[in-house]
Amino acid sequence: MSIQVPLNQLGLRQALQAIESGECTAIEIINACFDRIEAREPQVGAWQYSLTREEYLAQYEQRRFFFEQSLLKGLPLGIKDIIDTADMPTEMGSPIHQGRRPGNDASCVALLRQAGGIVLGKTVTTEFAYFRPGKTANPRDLSRTPGGSSSGSAAAVADAMVPVALGSQTAASVIRPAAYCGAVGYVGSRAEFSLRGVQPLAQSLDSLGVLARSVEDVELIRAILLRQLDPLQRSVAVTPRRVLIVRGSCIGESEPDMEQAIERLAARLAQQGVDTLWLESGEELARIVARHQQIMAFEVARNLVEESARTEALSEPLRELIANGLTLTRDQYLAALQDVETTRTALWAQYADVDAILAPAAPGVAPSGLGKTGAPHMSRPWQAMGLPVVTLPGLTDAAGLPLGVQLIGRSRGDQALLALAHWLEPLLLQC
Amino acid sequence: MSIQVPLNQLGLRQALQAIESGECTAIEIINACFDRIEAREPQVGAWQYSLTREEYLAQYEQRRFFFEQSLLKGLPLGIKDIIDTADMPTEMGSPIHQGRRPGNDASCVALLRQAGGIVLGKTVTTEFAYFRPGKTANPRDLSRTPGGSSSGSAAAVADAMVPVALGSQTAASVIRPAAYCGAVGYVGSRAEFSLRGVQPLAQSLDSLGVLARSVEDVELIRAILLRQLDPLQRSVAVTPRRVLIVRGSCIGESEPDMEQAIERLAARLAQQGVDTLWLESGEELARIVARHQQIMAFEVARNLVEESARTEALSEPLRELIANGLTLTRDQYLAALQDVETTRTALWAQYADVDAILAPAAPGVAPSGLGKTGAPHMSRPWQAMGLPVVTLPGLTDAAGLPLGVQLIGRSRGDQALLALAHWLEPLLLQC
Repeated sequence: MSIQVPLNQLGLRQALQAIESGECTAIEIINACFDRIEAREPQVGAWQYSLTREEYLAQYEQRRFFFEQSLLKGLPLGIKDIIDTADMPTEMGSPIHQGRRPGNDASCVALLRQAGGIVLGKTVTTEFAYFRPGKTANPRDLSRTPGGSSSGSAAAVADAMVPVALGSQTAASVIRPAAYCGAVGYVGSRAEFSLRGVQPLAQSLDSLGVLARSVEDVELIRAILLRQLDPLQRSVAVTPRRVLIVRGSCIGESEPDMEQAIERLAARLAQQGVDTLWLESGEELARIVARHQQIMAFEVARNLVEESARTEALSEPLRELIANGLTLTRDQYLAALQDVETTRTALWAQYADVDAILAPAAPGVAPSGLGKTGAPHMSRPWQAMGLPVVTLPGLTDAAGLPLGVQLIGRSRGDQALLALAHWLEPLLLQC
Repeated sequence: MSIQVPLNQLGLRQALQAIESGECTAIEIINACFDRIEAREPQVGAWQYSLTREEYLAQYEQRRFFFEQSLLKGLPLGIKDIIDTADMPTEMGSPIHQGRRPGNDASCVALLRQAGGIVLGKTVTTEFAYFRPGKTANPRDLSRTPGGSSSGSAAAVADAMVPVALGSQTAASVIRPAAYCGAVGYVGSRAEFSLRGVQPLAQSLDSLGVLARSVEDVELIRAILLRQLDPLQRSVAVTPRRVLIVRGSCIGESEPDMEQAIERLAARLAQQGVDTLWLESGEELARIVARHQQIMAFEVARNLVEESARTEALSEPLRELIANGLTLTRDQYLAALQDVETTRTALWAQYADVDAILAPAAPGVAPSGLGKTGAPHMSRPWQAMGLPVVTLPGLTDAAGLPLGVQLIGRSRGDQALLALAHWLEPLLLQC
């Protein structure tokens, strides 16, 4: 069997298998990734900082035996630039932290390095993982936003510059860019992974995420981050018995293309024998969107402390967020947290026999222009509830632009969710 | 009215009032703190790193106008050495991080500095806030442990070297040293404060804490950390209507002195018209102690990543904790989390009309010897549940050594808990 895709397009597991079977070497794959970056980075702008090919290969050669024996074989990774790396700056998309060099790797980075991954570079983030975009364009259409805040991670993975990248999500920062760029995005349940060295934005909302081109690659990265004994183990695809489908309009503004795509997908699920239930009223979810905004504003204002004193260096949206957070009373904040908790409990009690929730991952395709990163409301309810989420590509609009859908699981039910995503993944290519 | 206590013994609010009324200056108080440190630090060993008097006063003079106008008037603070400070090393009690200089202040430190506090120094922590003790002795009896892991913060505050200090708790790291040293210790509800720059140990368990000599000073620090509009506002003492009392033996090994102290205190509460209820069976709590250990081991093993590869530089207990964490299965870990959640919900449902829980803060007085920090089991259940806790001094054994008791509140009910603690505080001095 010959490899028929360019080497930079191989998924992480595909690449490992190709190396294992002698079809190609790790260095050939690494070089293909650098070729892609050289060709595309001037337009895509996914990287805030990256190794040169020579630096990368020198790092590889220096510990060649280790990498050859390792799980990840020295293959390249992208790391969102709010995640600390000992050998590269971590600037959080803000001029305030220009040139900041953390002393240590974040735990997630250290785990990936111990598994034999090499950090190719730091991917562009919006300012402090909030709204102000970096330089990244959407690789599917360079005139459109890649989404944010994990803009560079999603673009680099979708554009086949690297097979996987780490991101983080406080509102919609993994799911939306993955959806807009046509990548697989995974956000872990609250507290699923160590966030040591991942610069926090809002402690009740922050989650670590993975950008990849397949569910099986998400599972591999997840297994490494959890130090599982056999990280190469793959979930068996599980067919859901019953899925709750949430129209985008139940959460907020939603475009006709997306609403139709969800209906097509629901019909496809029903054909497969899945019992599909439609959420009737979205009143609760729309309210939780507002609650999420309150919780985020309150916590960000108590987290970005030194920065909030340097208003001249902050974007207008971030200044506003902090100002809003400072005017919220503690009672409003606690009421918001309580409402989220009550609504989450009620939702899963009402739909106790549902295996997962299916919803749009964004209001539609990536909007035109690079000045904004699109609307985050489709992610806010699930992120407030601390639920695991996977967004999958496959659906498109008439122009072929990605329409991402997300599958939402129970708190800490990440593994079960990924097994369902594994099943849904090929189906989406047939809708 | 004249000030009749040495200036270093003033609480934070007392000091601010004395400055305000012209009874003394901030510099006189600062000098009194340094006098105390010079006299006692060779025996107590509370500080991992500290400013000299000259450095401190130079910092004060440089921004004298700011400090004079500020809330905290340039008064000194101790910061546990797992909390990042931009101008001092943060070594986490480990040779691995000797000389480590973080680039930024933790958010909690930045907030205290913006309020006009000056970080006098970094207080001794056990190794990564786990078990291996630092150099600190118990100021009440230098042959005894101060408890850990916030050993230096508790000792410095109890010995009147500084009025307040920050600590952190993953198992018993604020409550136990506060109890052993005879200080007030407060642990916030899970996610109550930003932990940005507070080096994490276990993400489902870590909380920020405050060591002080009064509840009113805890409230002041808490208000600053929450950026409350009027941080000087004080809670009105609230008499509890009904308190659930937990014998130490319900949780684990408990000494007769402590059991008797709790009984004395319960009788005193009843005299005050408080309805006292005794927890009948401790089976659940003893089980949650074990669950806490599992959750902690699992998460620490995925958090201390680079460190866990340097076994030669780790203590035996920490090596064991990490090894245990790596052998736990994910199912065991999830079952532990689930059990904690179910037990917490059931406990508060069964005792829905209780205002707070009262329990020993430690099995007894501080044990002899500096080789260990005492047993943490009295804190594990509440910490696993993410509840706010205050420990208060006042009770003693026959030799006059402190027997700390803790008051435990509902999740996010920190403010209500402190109002009850405010009421209990003077009562403890009369038991």
